[in-house]
Amino acid sequence: MDHIQQTINEIFHKHLSNREGSPATYIPELAKARPEHFSIVVTTVNGEVFSVGDSEIYFSMQSTSKPFTYGMVLQDLGRVFVMSKVGVEPTGEAFNSIVELEKNTHRPYNPMINSGAIAISSFIRGQSFEDRLTNMKDFFSLFLGRSIGVDENIFESEKNTAHRNRSIAHLLKHFGIIEGKIEDALDLYFKQCSFSLNSLDMSLMAATLANSGINPKTKIRSINKEYVGDILSLMFTCGMYDTSGKWAYSVGIPAKSGVSGAIFGVIPGVMGIAVYSPSINEHGHSVRGVKVFQDLSKELNLSIFRK
Amino acid sequence: MDHIQQTINEIFHKHLSNREGSPATYIPELAKARPEHFSIVVTTVNGEVFSVGDSEIYFSMQSTSKPFTYGMVLQDLGRVFVMSKVGVEPTGEAFNSIVELEKNTHRPYNPMINSGAIAISSFIRGQSFEDRLTNMKDFFSLFLGRSIGVDENIFESEKNTAHRNRSIAHLLKHFGIIEGKIEDALDLYFKQCSFSLNSLDMSLMAATLANSGINPKTKIRSINKEYVGDILSLMFTCGMYDTSGKWAYSVGIPAKSGVSGAIFGVIPGVMGIAVYSPSINEHGHSVRGVKVFQDLSKELNLSIFRK
Amino acid sequence: MDHIQQTINEIFHKHLSNREGSPATYIPELAKARPEHFSIVVTTVNGEVFSVGDSEIYFSMQSTSKPFTYGMVLQDLGRVFVMSKVGVEPTGEAFNSIVELEKNTHRPYNPMINSGAIAISSFIRGQSFEDRLTNMKDFFSLFLGRSIGVDENIFESEKNTAHRNRSIAHLLKHFGIIEGKIEDALDLYFKQCSFSLNSLDMSLMAATLANSGINPKTKIRSINKEYVGDILSLMFTCGMYDTSGKWAYSVGIPAKSGVSGAIFGVIPGVMGIAVYSPSINEHGHSVRGVKVFQDLSKELNLSIFRK
Amino acid sequence: MDHIQQTINEIFHKHLSNREGSPATYIPELAKARPEHFSIVVTTVNGEVFSVGDSEIYFSMQSTSKPFTYGMVLQDLGRVFVMSKVGVEPTGEAFNSIVELEKNTHRPYNPMINSGAIAISSFIRGQSFEDRLTNMKDFFSLFLGRSIGVDENIFESEKNTAHRNRSIAHLLKHFGIIEGKIEDALDLYFKQCSFSLNSLDMSLMAATLANSGINPKTKIRSINKEYVGDILSLMFTCGMYDTSGKWAYSVGIPAKSGVSGAIFGVIPGVMGIAVYSPSINEHGHSVRGVKVFQDLSKELNLSIFRK
Repeated sequence: MDHIQQTINEIFHKHLSNREGSPATYIPELAKARPEHFSIVVTTVNGEVFSVGDSEIYFSMQSTSKPFTYGMVLQDLGRVFVMSKVGVEPTGEAFNSIVELEKNTHRPYNPMINSGAIAISSFIRGQSFEDRLTNMKDFFSLFLGRSIGVDENIFESEKNTAHRNRSIAHLLKHFGIIEGKIEDALDLYFKQCSFSLNSLDMSLMAATLANSGINPKTKIRSINKEYVGDILSLMFTCGMYDTSGKWAYSVGIPAKSGVSGAIFGVIPGVMGIAVYSPSINEHGHSVRGVKVFQDLSKELNLSIFRK
Repeated sequence: MDHIQQTINEIFHKHLSNREGSPATYIPELAKARPEHFSIVVTTVNGEVFSVGDSEIYFSMQSTSKPFTYGMVLQDLGRVFVMSKVGVEPTGEAFNSIVELEKNTHRPYNPMINSGAIAISSFIRGQSFEDRLTNMKDFFSLFLGRSIGVDENIFESEKNTAHRNRSIAHLLKHFGIIEGKIEDALDLYFKQCSFSLNSLDMSLMAATLANSGINPKTKIRSINKEYVGDILSLMFTCGMYDTSGKWAYSVGIPAKSGVSGAIFGVIPGVMGIAVYSPSINEHGHSVRGVKVFQDLSKELNLSIFRK
Repeated sequence: MDHIQQTINEIFHKHLSNREGSPATYIPELAKARPEHFSIVVTTVNGEVFSVGDSEIYFSMQSTSKPFTYGMVLQDLGRVFVMSKVGVEPTGEAFNSIVELEKNTHRPYNPMINSGAIAISSFIRGQSFEDRLTNMKDFFSLFLGRSIGVDENIFESEKNTAHRNRSIAHLLKHFGIIEGKIEDALDLYFKQCSFSLNSLDMSLMAATLANSGINPKTKIRSINKEYVGDILSLMFTCGMYDTSGKWAYSVGIPAKSGVSGAIFGVIPGVMGIAVYSPSINEHGHSVRGVKVFQDLSKELNLSIFRK
Repeated sequence: MDHIQQTINEIFHKHLSNREGSPATYIPELAKARPEHFSIVVTTVNGEVFSVGDSEIYFSMQSTSKPFTYGMVLQDLGRVFVMSKVGVEPTGEAFNSIVELEKNTHRPYNPMINSGAIAISSFIRGQSFEDRLTNMKDFFSLFLGRSIGVDENIFESEKNTAHRNRSIAHLLKHFGIIEGKIEDALDLYFKQCSFSLNSLDMSLMAATLANSGINPKTKIRSINKEYVGDILSLMFTCGMYDTSGKWAYSVGIPAKSGVSGAIFGVIPGVMGIAVYSPSINEHGHSVRGVKVFQDLSKELNLSIFRK
């Protein structure tokens, strides 16, 4: 296992000086991130941790939260209902596209893009908004091994600059896809995007998926095994938005990225990987994150179809 | 291994009476296929064969040829050139879509849809059309373990009813994607679609991919190992057209279907699977083929992300 | 002029028994309209009125308000500003399309479709919402020759079922097209859609445009002459949504329809025409209204390019 | 009438030094046009001619031929048939768009864009290709008052660089819109685009439309009066491609442009106008041509809705 530590050290230093891209600007709070921050963390299914760089710097989950909320709602409401509302197809369109909703069934193509994730948020169960938020936090906390918190500055910043997401939510409502109050669905969506954690946390969440749903540290089941396959399959085909095909082709690891600069990947039965570096490219992926995963995939022979 | 034979027998009989769908009609010759034909064949990487049904009935490859031609051109011209001409992204659009060519780079989204496959055909090397056709046949023959033939009735029928494919080819030419004569590119495309084989052959081709490119029967390398990963990755994310995401989610096997009613799947390191049954659904997939793969995936635990 | 009365009488009776289409249902209040209601009113630039049928039945203006608000904002803010925000091109898309906003400049294609009209509403001047509403009412009242009122039931009904329009408004905000509060822009839009009048009123409004902006009854200028041409041009190319081309071709009169079942047309220098009949077709036009205009155009030789 | 001569003289000199844009390059022969060429010709319905500049320089008609072929086919086959094949709606898309064919009815939106014009060409009657070409030439010659010729260099150049138009033709065939051989339809289309004439000729053709179909010089009826309205209506709403709305708004004259740098306009009952200047803008319109029409419309008060 020293090999893992050595490998991430080398890859870390290889990309340390890379200054391409810049932090996301469309949410003002995200623009405050420091581009020099950079970390790589691996957590194995046995709970071993390998880490390099700023692994204790906190950031917001953004879209990396989507696979988990999707799993939660799948577990609560079942595949038949969820599939009737949100598809599982890649789109070839950008993460924030609204165009595909006008096609055919008016279902979002998949839960990894904003439209699908907002729909999924509207299905979170609970008696009240607070109750639903608590249920979502509790679910995420199982993966984290501790209570997850919301970065309220990020939340407010998201909420105030979300015209495109609001547009999507109203169109989803128009087509009868989302349930309940639009504001509540959006706020639950913004809350999960604002969940705050560090790379150590994120690699543990990834490792929990790698470990068939059992948290390697707490040994507590976080999600039923049968839904882990759903999540990983979706991450593989749709997790990297309109570069998902290229990612599957060149990296070959189920993964999810967020515009805060985080990417996590899952090697089933082996380990979870988290990379954080806030400068992103035009597709919304961490520039250094993409490079780290390409190198890791090659060095550790992780690509699913290249063994 | 008796387990495999028993499993395919059971699944075969479970779906034998299914009469949903009908043979493809848009190519007149395909409409002549007999809907009662049905076969399942498994070939392991050790060369063992398990078979049930009409495994010696011949059919045309249609789109199941696409992954092989893609591999051939990749091996001949390299990833950099091929990627500059044809992408690796799923589209969310139907197999014969022309719309996505008007977007962005004007590259076909991927080589598994018609536009991408026609472009790939235009890159087949050779001094003359005959030379290029021979090269392509030789490449396919390595996977087949014997010389492959063209069903000339199918070829003529394809050629005469291909207005949409011709439209695509001219637009590709307009955008500078395809090279050489349009007619030659189309004829090479129609020829590969008209390659004639049976389910035993097809499962051996699949098994060759499962065996990292070495034909399990002839022990001859058919393609360099490094390109097998490219092919399987593309099959997984794009092989089933606009149901690729659902297939990855519910079946989880890299696969490719053709409108003649064939589907083949690859279990890396284990085996190749071929199913033939000519009645197809609205997405162009064999109705019984889809059901067989869903059952096989479950019974033999083949889904990549559900182990 | 007896000829006009006789002509509208004949056309009225010809279509009286037509029961095709049905009142708009997507706004619950509109669904309450009585399909048997039917009127045709002509007001000349000299103020003569020819009328048949239920010409005193009140209905809401809906989209027939759009040309007037457009004219008001043009007059207040000038062509350069308005053109920078909302185009003057027909779209070939339905009246409530959102797709075209994702193209190119993100400007609405024209002010006669919902996206353009919502944008235009956001530009109405005033210190407060009430002030802006008063300004808009005052402007419309000039055309009406009396104070215009809002049907508050319609307004509430519009407001509560407007998910698609809200979606459009948020996307317009996202692209920086609309100004100020989204809610205010939408409410001003819903208010103008809910302006309540009868066919006599509407034909007078049309006649005011026919009379270069001077109300034939009050003799008061309602809008500067130079903007009347802008309005009529837009009505001619875009007034009938995605059937504007067919309307120009077969009727040849600048016109505007609303889903309440009203259509008005303008014969420059001659007269204004209003038809009301609440049963609409799949494009949102009054079924009897379309037929009346086709017949009127032919009988009175009104088509601009067929003289 | 001296006023007309004086006006076109002034406008000619105002724009003489304008060097914006450049001749079309996608057809090599068109790129040879000389940018300094510039002419304005007006022919009245009485046959008076007012001319300034290079009015005897020959150029190819390109898309300015479309309204005439449309009229010919309308007259031969009737509105019902033609409308079933080609619509009359503006598109909001560029002149060479293929995307709209994938929508709804698969009819071209209108006969003024390439897809519609190619379809129209496929309907030209005759026993053979030569016969059909002769019929078309004869029809155009009536408007010209002399036999029209084809610039064979342009024709060959069009034919050899027409991948996009071929793509469109094959898709039209796929959808069952066009009849007969694709090559013949395309060649008839390229032939009409290659009809060679000068600005004097073109203004006479326009004047024939202005004169309800009777050639002001020969006094011979070139087309039945009832179809002149169809043509002018289509020119007004669709003649300037995706700037048709803006043209209707700012110029207000039924007109048609071609990428050779010609634009002609029709003032019904008054006159025809032709402008030639080969440097075109990004929409494919003559740069000086657009400016001349804007000025002429203003100076001579020609805009239909601004009188």
